[in-house]
Formats: sequence, structure tokens, C-alpha cells
Amino acid sequence: MSEDKISLKHGAGGTAMMKLVKEVVLKEITQKNQGSIGLDELDDGATIEVGDKTLVFTTDSHTINPIFFPGGDIGRLAIAGTVNDLAVMGGKPIAMACAIVFREGFLVDDFRKICKSIEATAREVEVSTVTGDTKVVERDALDEVIITTTGVGLANDLKTDSQLTPGDSIIVTGTIGDHETAILSHREGIKIKGEIKSDVAPIWKTIEAALKAGRVSAMKDPTRGGIAGALNELASKSNVGITLNEDDIPISNPVRNIDEMLGIDPLVLTNEGKAIIGVNGEDCDSVLEAVKKTKYGKNAQVIGEVTEEHPGKVALKTSVGGQRLVRATIGAPAPRIC
Amino acid sequence: MSEDKISLKHGAGGTAMMKLVKEVVLKEITQKNQGSIGLDELDDGATIEVGDKTLVFTTDSHTINPIFFPGGDIGRLAIAGTVNDLAVMGGKPIAMACAIVFREGFLVDDFRKICKSIEATAREVEVSTVTGDTKVVERDALDEVIITTTGVGLANDLKTDSQLTPGDSIIVTGTIGDHETAILSHREGIKIKGEIKSDVAPIWKTIEAALKAGRVSAMKDPTRGGIAGALNELASKSNVGITLNEDDIPISNPVRNIDEMLGIDPLVLTNEGKAIIGVNGEDCDSVLEAVKKTKYGKNAQVIGEVTEEHPGKVALKTSVGGQRLVRATIGAPAPRIC
Repeated sequence: MSEDKISLKHGAGGTAMMKLVKEVVLKEITQKNQGSIGLDELDDGATIEVGDKTLVFTTDSHTINPIFFPGGDIGRLAIAGTVNDLAVMGGKPIAMACAIVFREGFLVDDFRKICKSIEATAREVEVSTVTGDTKVVERDALDEVIITTTGVGLANDLKTDSQLTPGDSIIVTGTIGDHETAILSHREGIKIKGEIKSDVAPIWKTIEAALKAGRVSAMKDPTRGGIAGALNELASKSNVGITLNEDDIPISNPVRNIDEMLGIDPLVLTNEGKAIIGVNGEDCDSVLEAVKKTKYGKNAQVIGEVTEEHPGKVALKTSVGGQRLVRATIGAPAPRIC
Repeated sequence: MSEDKISLKHGAGGTAMMKLVKEVVLKEITQKNQGSIGLDELDDGATIEVGDKTLVFTTDSHTINPIFFPGGDIGRLAIAGTVNDLAVMGGKPIAMACAIVFREGFLVDDFRKICKSIEATAREVEVSTVTGDTKVVERDALDEVIITTTGVGLANDLKTDSQLTPGDSIIVTGTIGDHETAILSHREGIKIKGEIKSDVAPIWKTIEAALKAGRVSAMKDPTRGGIAGALNELASKSNVGITLNEDDIPISNPVRNIDEMLGIDPLVLTNEGKAIIGVNGEDCDSVLEAVKKTKYGKNAQVIGEVTEEHPGKVALKTSVGGQRLVRATIGAPAPRIC
């Protein structure tokens, strides 16, 4: 590794983080599987085989500034982030662990609000918060609070990143870029016509509807790195090409306006309540219809298709008739927000 | 709650933390069980029922200063801490998730050392690290690094804090106070005759030997709050009394000397490679013998017994022939070290 220090870009979910993880973690850790999907797969989580059941298991440390933001808070984010990682592997969330590190001086009332939010978010998908940990560190030794949530889910029909197949259609379950644009515009004090709020939500019920409605091949949670990162991972791991139609990608007007103002590509922005779903072409209509009937899937659209051409790469047919490659980012496109 | 801010004592594993958790978390979170042991039990972890199997599930956020210390480092601590919580519930560790939050500027070489340590510690108990997460936060926004480990174990014979019974004997698997005394004396630059190092170790094999050798009733991982905290929890949850014999409690000479110098009671100091084991009196000898044959159980001793008298309380027969109550601490007895 040419660099000797970890920098912010290594935490941004892009190629720099992937490189660090591959060169350090995957080399040093050698006992890394307990089921078919372990650390090497760098999927949204791992599998654990227990008797004849397949569990999925995932963990995420959450920091965000501010901790209360338009559309949610760090408690909702912590539950949704982990529920959604389980969900896109086909795992029905069953139990969550929640470890909280506070900065000394944190308000007890804020802690109570966060707990209420954790409970309300968990209730949406009927998952229990069964165990946890609290630590407190000295003032100025921490962001306000870090919440690490770890989830266990039960997968009757496991989905992994490598199962996308030419002929599949790609569905996104709603508008993209809402979470990161909401945080950015709130932090920067940008005023714009139309409300922008985070999409943070636990989307297991949307995923469950998709799984029941047709042959889903692979799914991905487009958080850090956005749909650009998620689609590149799917294309690379499944060794297929993906071609998107720019006109079909759902983006709200306020998000489009702010992203244009800030010069940020919404394809690389974090989402916290969306999924990318690869589905057999024949079942695409029925899956899309089922997704659109769910609370968090109303604005779902088919945004592209899986091809044999350009394996490992994601192409975008632009609104003006051209075509360009969509790349995963190296680091963060914008200040770290999650 | 009379206090409106979270302070360091709330993270110290004593009664202040218990009060905060009970008044906030246990009130606000209402979906908190997936098996027989959930959040309300405040045990070392929770249970998850999967088919006819009982899994145990536990999480812990680890911070320590310095991250490399005599006897171990934060990687070994993170694995051992979580393995031991599973172990004292009777759970054979099967899979770990590891979420790391770095401070910007953290050395890649140190990260590599930590990964090597995680792997070496996990190998001792044949547990796999199957999934993880990395985040990076701004300089000065964090201790150097926080590692949150979450473990899943398989319990063929679940042990909970409420199963201690009058007539049981209490075994401690080795000398107490080593971890916290090592960190304190290292940080304060105290020189003393004799080596002091942390006892940090994953003790599943010691626990497994105990479980095979006799009727174990309840176990506890005496980390924050020390054996005083662990024994008070057992006494309270099992509604029994515990009487300890001061002369039987194993403490190394260097630890005793430093603790006397600093005026700290070793009973309240953190251990990271020890267990408290309650065992049916008739099986005490065979369990003690089995424990002493294991790598981390050589200095095990019977330190007391479980009584019907003084339920919920822990008494200590002192070396000089008196008796005193052993209380759980309110906050930390010494600067926060874990």
C-alpha cells in the first residue's frame, strides 16, 4: 500500500475503501466463513448456517452530523441501515444488537428521542432489539454519538451480489439521492423551493413483496457510493454489463436542483431507504407492480437492463442520446455525512 | 431522571449505567425479545431461537487508550470481550462481525497489526470473522479507533444470570484485576517489581471444560465493574446471597502492590480473560480440576459459596476475621480504560 495513513476517503464506500479492505483485512483475516458468504465476498452481509436454516448477519457503525435531520435521526438511520443490508440478501430481520458510544455531556433527552426512534423504526419491520452496549468517552474524543447496529435475519431464499444474469431488468425502488442531498442542504443552509428530506426507512416489506412477486436475481443497498457504486459492484461480481436509461432514473425535482447547484452527480449519493433489484426480465412487470404497492416503493421504476456486453461495467444512455460509463467513486463525492 | 447529561460514570458498568439503561432504554424499547433472554434481562447477551437451536447474540463497543498495551491490543480485546460474553451464556462462538471507526490519520500499519491480532485471537477459539464495516471520521472527532464486535454463538446448554442456587460454589478462573491494573500502571508510568500485563484472552475453551465437567448453574464475565459488579448482578438476579472468602481470591503480587499504592479495590477492576462460574457444590471439585487444566484457567480457585441468607447481596469474609458487604460501584473506580 502506497499510503500509510487512513484518510476520509477510506470511509466513503468507494474504491479507496475497497482497496484498503482487500489489502489489509482480507489478507490478514483467514478464518472468515461460517456459511457460503463470508468476508471475502464483501457482500451486504454474511451467512451463518444453523441446522437447516440460513441466517444473514451484518453490521454497520453509524455517525451523522447533525444527528437529528430532515426526515429522520441517527436512531432511525441505524436500524434502517442494518435492516436494509439484511433485506437485500433476502433476509427477514429477526433480531438487532445496538452498541452506543456517547460523548460525555450527551443529553439524556436526546438519548430518549433516539431510543423512541429506534423502537418506531424497528416496529415497522417487526424486528426486536434484543441486546446492546453503552460506553461513554471523554468530551472532544468523539463525534456526538456512534451507534453500531448488527442484525440477524432469516433467509429462505438467499440473494448475493454475483447472481445477476443477462436479460435481467434493474429496478430501483424509488427516487435517488434524497438522503445525502437532504443532509448536505440542511448543513449548508441551502434554501430551495420544495421540501427535501432523507429517505431513511427500513425497507424489508418492499423487498419481501418483490421476492414474492417474481424471480429476483440479486439486490443491493445503495448507501455510501450511491447507485453508481452498488451497480458497479453487482456488474463486477456477476461479471455482466448493466445499461441504464438516464430518463428512467427517478430523481425528485428539489434533489435535482440542489445537485445541479452543487455540481454533484446524484448517482453517487447515499440513499438510506432504497434498493436496487435485479429481476428476471419476464417477471419484471409483476415485481415492479408489487413493489409500487408498498409504503416505500411507490416511486419504483425500471432503470435499465443486464447485458452480456461490457461485463463488469455500467453504461448510461443519456437523455441527449449519448452514452457514458458510470464509475464507482474513489472517495466521497461530498463531505462525509454517514 | 434527575441528571440531564450523560457523564463518564454512565459508561463504567456500575449502578449509574444500569439506572440510565433501565430508565431510558428499557422504557422506550418495547420489542426486545426474540428468545427467552432479551433486553430486559440485561444479561451478557440475548438469545435467538432458530428452528430447534438456541443462539446467543452479544455486542460490545471497544475503546482503549493506549490501543497497544502490555498483554494485548484493541483487536485482541475486541474479540475476547465478545467471545467471553457468549461463553458465559454457554454459547460456543461461531461467527463474529467487526465494525471499525477510525480517526482520520490512523496508521495503516497499526490497522494491519490489529487485524493480525483479531485473527490470532479468533483462531484460539476457532471463531470466524465473517462480516464487518469500516468508517472514518475527522481528526479530533474520535478516540483513535473504536471497534464494535458482535458475536453469534450456539448454546446447547444456555446459562443465565438468574440460575444461581443456594449450595452452589463460586469459582473464579484466575487472578483478578490484571487488565485494569496493567492499563493504569502503563498509562501512569508506574514502575514496580514483577511484570503486570493484561489478562485479555478468549476463554471459551475454559468455559467449555467447566460445562463438560459438572453442573454449572450460572456464569458471568467480570469486565467493567469487576467481580464485585458481576457477583452483585448474579446475587440480585438469582435472589440469593453470596459469601466470599477474601483469602481465597487469587490476586497476583504486582497487582496487589499497585492497587494498594493507588488505593483501589481489585474487586471492582475490569478483567478481560476471566469468568465467574457458579457450580453445584457436589461438582465443584471436578469443575475446578477441569478448569485448571485449560490454558486460561491455571490459577482458578473456589472463592465463595451461594447462600439463602442476605439475598441479593455479596458478603466478604475478610482476612482479619471480619465481614463486609461488597457493593457494585456507581461509576468507574479509576479513569476509564475500556
